[in-house]
Amino acid sequence: MNNVYSLMIHGGAGQFSDVKTDEDQRPYLQRIENILESGRTVLAKGGSAIDAVLACVSQLEDEPMFNAGKGSVLNAAGQVEMDAAIIDGRDLSAGAVGAVTQVKNPVLLANSIRQQGRHVMLVGKGALAFAKQQGLTLESNEYFIVEKRLRQFQKLQGTTRTEMDHDVEITPDPGHDTVGAVARDSYGNLAAATSTGGMTNKLLGRTGDSPIIGAGVYADNHTCAISATGHGEEIMRVVLAKRIADEIELCGVDLAQAIHNGLRYFVDRVHGRGGVIAVDSNGMCRSRYTTKHMVHGWIEQGGEVRCQF
Amino acid sequence: MNNVYSLMIHGGAGQFSDVKTDEDQRPYLQRIENILESGRTVLAKGGSAIDAVLACVSQLEDEPMFNAGKGSVLNAAGQVEMDAAIIDGRDLSAGAVGAVTQVKNPVLLANSIRQQGRHVMLVGKGALAFAKQQGLTLESNEYFIVEKRLRQFQKLQGTTRTEMDHDVEITPDPGHDTVGAVARDSYGNLAAATSTGGMTNKLLGRTGDSPIIGAGVYADNHTCAISATGHGEEIMRVVLAKRIADEIELCGVDLAQAIHNGLRYFVDRVHGRGGVIAVDSNGMCRSRYTTKHMVHGWIEQGGEVRCQF
Repeated sequence: MNNVYSLMIHGGAGQFSDVKTDEDQRPYLQRIENILESGRTVLAKGGSAIDAVLACVSQLEDEPMFNAGKGSVLNAAGQVEMDAAIIDGRDLSAGAVGAVTQVKNPVLLANSIRQQGRHVMLVGKGALAFAKQQGLTLESNEYFIVEKRLRQFQKLQGTTRTEMDHDVEITPDPGHDTVGAVARDSYGNLAAATSTGGMTNKLLGRTGDSPIIGAGVYADNHTCAISATGHGEEIMRVVLAKRIADEIELCGVDLAQAIHNGLRYFVDRVHGRGGVIAVDSNGMCRSRYTTKHMVHGWIEQGGEVRCQF
Repeated sequence: MNNVYSLMIHGGAGQFSDVKTDEDQRPYLQRIENILESGRTVLAKGGSAIDAVLACVSQLEDEPMFNAGKGSVLNAAGQVEMDAAIIDGRDLSAGAVGAVTQVKNPVLLANSIRQQGRHVMLVGKGALAFAKQQGLTLESNEYFIVEKRLRQFQKLQGTTRTEMDHDVEITPDPGHDTVGAVARDSYGNLAAATSTGGMTNKLLGRTGDSPIIGAGVYADNHTCAISATGHGEEIMRVVLAKRIADEIELCGVDLAQAIHNGLRYFVDRVHGRGGVIAVDSNGMCRSRYTTKHMVHGWIEQGGEVRCQF
């Protein structure tokens, strides 16, 4: 234990067209800061990277301003279906859940799947059945729905539009998708987790990049821990998180260069819209995004909290 | 168009403990050969790599001896839930389906999702709803179930065992999982597809590597087309197909070396059990596996059919 822990979290990438002034940004940044400080508490007393990302992502899920858990966007059927995943960089043990309903904290369900070890990914009603069996907290569909998401849904309902907001004239900001956390604990172990309600007006059963190991999330003690956010389908098609980890492992570049190369590849191949946060085995924190904003913050090697919108 | 098409298909990796003699192997090899010849017909008249992998994988699904479509293994609830995916190396357009019931040919559903372009992955009842909307052929649960799979299920029912057969004393061969195809057409384009019923006695809603873009399947004209088979959870944790493609793109190694490196990494990191078939942009066909058998065959650069058990 060398006490050099690092932690990085995000609350999604996009246009955030409803966030115009510093005043509008303040609640997001305040919440990111608070959650980072609570993650610090876990890591400073010797908690694992897995414990830290679980603590942060479950708080991001509980916070209605972010599109995950409570406050998730609505699918084309007017329901909340959620995706989440977690991976431990020590042994690559992973758990993921796709298109699950009712589960208050999908990231805790993903972690239960990881801990049980029988499977990596459960979806739909099978994921819900497993959550019940594990005694996880369930909520009604109403618990998850907040006024803002209902308005976003009503604007898109009956259309085939699902995109994140990249053109304010087309789509009035249907969610900043995804929350995520990456950590390096005092023992040098890495972990990453993601959670999301997906995209407003997505089809029933649509699963994005967040629960796909290697696309929206990856962690390996040999390389880095990564959480991606943005247009899920584009992230899936280039398998973004694994690509960045492979840049480090196969090319020997550092984290900053790996992210730079990975996002260039993301743009070149699929005109990718999104971003990543990542921490490497030395505790370096790096981020990069191709969207207008990515609300995120970090504690690098036990230092001060930094936030960016 | 240079008429140098290549095609490779597999019917799964594992112990195949019910296949002991050359005589036992013959029907598998015969079927692989027939399906390769029908894929050749597509490619020889200028059909696309996507058309060829669709033709081959849908025939593998229809053949009861393979664990995909008709002949799929049963999950812990005694049902057939299937996974499939397809990806086009030209533009990385991809479609995937997880834990879907009733759909006669899951690979055709994956391709409908790819062609529609709105999403990459649909799971569970949402995937079934989309299949109905697209007018795909549906079948009852009984259509999919063959005697052999029912016996395999009855041996494992009520236990927590789900593995492929790697130790005949523990598990009497619960399925050779997954079918897949990779192709390079006469225009130099690549495509890959996979389909599976998963593992006998898997939990409801379990999704393996087959529908995960980058894990069980990947194709990119810049590198190669890959289909993996084996222990899905292990393949997912190392994101095997993308790793092999990244070996080519980031390290500049050839396909044979990339597969060699990829499978070494698979074994080193997760004691991986499985294999891959792959074709590169020059039409080279290569395969490698860590299991006792992988039933597969290929047509390299328009040549004779070759098969291996």
